[in-house]
Amino acid sequence: MKFFAPPVERLIEEFAKLPGIGQKTAQRLAFHILSQPKEEAEGFAQAIVDAKHTIFTCKVCQNLTDQEICPICSNLARDRTQICVVTDPKDVVAFERTREYNGLYHVLHGVISPLAHVGPDDIRIRELLLRVGDENEDVREVIIATNPDTEGEATAMYISRLLRPFGIRVTRLAYGIPVGGHLEYIDEVTLTRAFEGRREI
Amino acid sequence: MKFFAPPVERLIEEFAKLPGIGQKTAQRLAFHILSQPKEEAEGFAQAIVDAKHTIFTCKVCQNLTDQEICPICSNLARDRTQICVVTDPKDVVAFERTREYNGLYHVLHGVISPLAHVGPDDIRIRELLLRVGDENEDVREVIIATNPDTEGEATAMYISRLLRPFGIRVTRLAYGIPVGGHLEYIDEVTLTRAFEGRREI
Repeated sequence: MKFFAPPVERLIEEFAKLPGIGQKTAQRLAFHILSQPKEEAEGFAQAIVDAKHTIFTCKVCQNLTDQEICPICSNLARDRTQICVVTDPKDVVAFERTREYNGLYHVLHGVISPLAHVGPDDIRIRELLLRVGDENEDVREVIIATNPDTEGEATAMYISRLLRPFGIRVTRLAYGIPVGGHLEYIDEVTLTRAFEGRREI
Repeated sequence: MKFFAPPVERLIEEFAKLPGIGQKTAQRLAFHILSQPKEEAEGFAQAIVDAKHTIFTCKVCQNLTDQEICPICSNLARDRTQICVVTDPKDVVAFERTREYNGLYHVLHGVISPLAHVGPDDIRIRELLLRVGDENEDVREVIIATNPDTEGEATAMYISRLLRPFGIRVTRLAYGIPVGGHLEYIDEVTLTRAFEGRREI
C-alpha cells in the first residue's frame, strides 16, 4: 500500500537507491526537499545534472575532472616519474590531504572482483599499462595503493605481474599499526604484518 | 583547499545540506551519482523537480498531496467526525500504517517553538479552527497527536484551549510504556504516566 502521492513515492525511491540510505532516511530526505523553497530544491537537482554533464575522466590518470587533462596531470611541478595507483577518486583526495606525495595518480575505478563480475578489463588497467609503456613518459615507480582487503590485494598482485616486463620499480603501501591506534584493538593480521615489517630505530 | 572540480564540490555541498548527511557521506553520495549512468542521475534530478512542482498541501487537511483535495479527505468511507492533529506528513503515514484509525487528519507542519521563532501563526492552526467551525462539517472529536516532548505538549495545550469554545471532544494520545518495551529501560516520566493511566484488566 502506498501512503504518499506518486511523485513523493518516486522521490523517496530515488533517495533509497543511494548507498547507505535506507527507507526511513530516504523518507526523511524527501520530506526535507519538499519543505524547502523551490529554488533550493531546483538548485540541488541542477547540481546533479551539471555534475553529470561536466565531469568526465581525465584522459591520462582517469580521475574525475571537468577538464580534458586534470589539474594534477597538467601540473608541471609534479614528479612525473611516480604513479600512485588507487581504487577510486576519493583515494586521490586522501593522498592529496597528506601534502606529502608529489607524483601522479592512476585511478582504476574499481578492483578485480570475480564475485561482483568485475574482471581486469572492467577497470582501467589497460590505460595504466599504456602510460607506463609510453616512450614520451619517464615512469620509474608505480606505487600500488589499492585497499588492504582481499580484492585490493588480488588487484595489486595482478597489476604488479603485468608491470614486471617494464623493469620499473613496483611498490605497495606499508602495512602496520595505524598512527594513534591502540594495540589491544588491532586485529591479529595487522599486528603480524606490523611485526614482520619492524624497523631499527 | 578544494580537491575536486567545482561541479563535484557543488554536488557534495548540496548533499551535505540534507539533514543527517555529513561531509563524508555527502562525498560518498556525490561519487555514487557520478558513477551512475547519465539517465539514472537525471532521473533522480527529475524526481526532485517533479516532486516540488506537483506536490502541494491539501486545501482541507494541509497534508502533502498531488491533488487539490487529498485522497484521505476526499474518501467518503472515512469518518468525518474525527480529526487527528499531527505535526507532519510522516505522522499521517504512521497512523495509516496502524490501519485502525478511519477519521480525518490535520497536518500542522510544525509545532510552536519560541526558541526556533515558530509562533502559532507559523503553523496551520488557523486552518484547523476553520475546519472545526465550519457548519457544513460535523467535527465531534479532535485527537491531538503532537509528539510527547515539550514543544509538542505546549502546542497541544495551546490548541486545546482554542478548541474549548467549540464544545467538542478534545483528546490527547495516551502516555504509557511502549508495547514490547522493557520496564528497566523506560524513563521515570513515562513510567509515572503509565502508572497514573493504569486501567482495570
